[in-house]
Amino acid sequence: MTNRKSRPRRPSMKDVARLAGVSPTTVSFVINQSTHSNIPEETQERVWDAVRELDYRPNAMARGLRAQQTLTIGFISDVVATTPYAGQMIQGAQDLAWQHGYLLLLISTGGNQQMEETGVEMFLERQVDGIIYATMYHRAVTPPEAIDNVPTVLLDCFVEDHSLPSVVPDEVRGGREAIDHILARGHRRIGFVADNSTVPAQIGRLEGYQIALQGYGIEFDPSLVVAGQSTPAGGYGAAVTLLQQDNPPTALFCFNDRMAMGVYNAARKLGLSIPEDLAVVGFDNQELIVSYLDPPLTTMHLPHYEMGQWAVEHLLHTIAAPDTQDVAQQHLIDCPLIERASV
Amino acid sequence: MTNRKSRPRRPSMKDVARLAGVSPTTVSFVINQSTHSNIPEETQERVWDAVRELDYRPNAMARGLRAQQTLTIGFISDVVATTPYAGQMIQGAQDLAWQHGYLLLLISTGGNQQMEETGVEMFLERQVDGIIYATMYHRAVTPPEAIDNVPTVLLDCFVEDHSLPSVVPDEVRGGREAIDHILARGHRRIGFVADNSTVPAQIGRLEGYQIALQGYGIEFDPSLVVAGQSTPAGGYGAAVTLLQQDNPPTALFCFNDRMAMGVYNAARKLGLSIPEDLAVVGFDNQELIVSYLDPPLTTMHLPHYEMGQWAVEHLLHTIAAPDTQDVAQQHLIDCPLIERASV
Repeated sequence: MTNRKSRPRRPSMKDVARLAGVSPTTVSFVINQSTHSNIPEETQERVWDAVRELDYRPNAMARGLRAQQTLTIGFISDVVATTPYAGQMIQGAQDLAWQHGYLLLLISTGGNQQMEETGVEMFLERQVDGIIYATMYHRAVTPPEAIDNVPTVLLDCFVEDHSLPSVVPDEVRGGREAIDHILARGHRRIGFVADNSTVPAQIGRLEGYQIALQGYGIEFDPSLVVAGQSTPAGGYGAAVTLLQQDNPPTALFCFNDRMAMGVYNAARKLGLSIPEDLAVVGFDNQELIVSYLDPPLTTMHLPHYEMGQWAVEHLLHTIAAPDTQDVAQQHLIDCPLIERASV
Repeated sequence: MTNRKSRPRRPSMKDVARLAGVSPTTVSFVINQSTHSNIPEETQERVWDAVRELDYRPNAMARGLRAQQTLTIGFISDVVATTPYAGQMIQGAQDLAWQHGYLLLLISTGGNQQMEETGVEMFLERQVDGIIYATMYHRAVTPPEAIDNVPTVLLDCFVEDHSLPSVVPDEVRGGREAIDHILARGHRRIGFVADNSTVPAQIGRLEGYQIALQGYGIEFDPSLVVAGQSTPAGGYGAAVTLLQQDNPPTALFCFNDRMAMGVYNAARKLGLSIPEDLAVVGFDNQELIVSYLDPPLTTMHLPHYEMGQWAVEHLLHTIAAPDTQDVAQQHLIDCPLIERASV
């Protein structure tokens, strides 16, 4: 999926701080010759000694940005119009940015790679202080190389070598907690209305499903996992297959709320009442669906707003102290259970 | 709703052009001393004579912007996360902006007035070339005064004295075409599942409903208009009231697709088949609803994407030639019928 090269390990501001026996903030003050600080001459000398010993070079570009910030963040995403998810990510990002006096400069590319490259160039021309690179669903990406010129956080996506920091939903935990909830209500034969792809959401939620069953000492039965397209029609088909087995499940965990819509139709067709004859749990918490379905759907909340917030918060930390955060990481955000009336 | 003052009429570039007997473009070239033009000395003198006679003063701020554009448009809206509409408006705006090398700087205020004022100031600090002021649903607004400092277009909203250009859906025509479609299928007793408010969408669509009936020589029967909240529950209640009348309607026109969802539930409850026993038309064309409902819903498309495009296109014209467009206007965009299977 990606051919991004790992960065060589350069000495960081943290290394300087460790060697000088001071905090990274103190190092930052000394190096940037901040006039607001009041750091003893002797401490300053220790810092400069450590800088020389490690051959540490502050990130010049980042220092330039700090000197002349535009208080603007470039937000580039594949989709903005077709799902409410993108809106929630943008809202979370903008709310956090707003608290710190930042605004978002927006580009929606439809996933077009040429447009992504031009878009990042346009961000750089406008001297954004950092970039959020977002996708509509959790997946591996290969952002334009030019993104390396400014602090960047990946939102709902990741590069495979994890050379850029990212924030994604905790799919495994989401799957596990959905099944734990169903198990706690007494069900032991639980079907999985799965997505017929290998996206991280499917892989992670299936892993969570298996972990939860294991916790109750229930053996994994592959015939209880039936995949289809992640649409109402796909959910309908998978549910019919599952519910017409000889020993049918009494509960269905659905890859997403759209598939759960189809599960409701299948249950109606087969004369099964929800939740009396069949418990159903969705995933996404898509407002329009969960409130329309009768009974309202218990589901796992996809934390788009919260991921948007986290991405900007992390980005602003990196902008404020670029050399203290040179180790990329992947941050997982919980998908909490939203209990309604379908279990 | 608004206390914005009408602007005093200043002489415009058009007035200068008329007096000098040349085109506004020629006036623009002469005044801006464009080196690319090749305008005869004598014509230039005529233009300057007209400028003096009318005491015409080019908009200095706008000229400054032209000299040093940031190729950035401020996009300020009340909501971005909770409906797909905002996403479609942003997408339309960004796609048109992108074609011209512009990017959108985004602020979503949740309708908070203080945040709107601060937001516009932040736009001005970042020297945006123009501003789009957008709302989630068609309504009258009072934007911050500071918005007068740059070219502005109102998107899906308007100021009551029409002192700023705006683009909104053609609600009257949308209502009329919905009813024309139902009439053409032979229905003569048509109920209106209305919104219980006086928003422009409700007023306009009701007017369209009445005009269409008039066109067929059908007298308006107020008992066929029943209002409720613009939700599935509101639609359900209004539909039950309408369908249990002595002489019930054979078709229902719904204020929006959400209310149509409730109408489908009411029909099912009363044992009515759609479209055999009851024809239904919605409004909005909200993808998730229209494709889920069985049979798929015939509805009027709310042109959010197209309005977003129009707003930016008009804004860029104004930025390019600020003094040729000093007459504010309201532009209406069609809401075309999307035929599916419910009529």
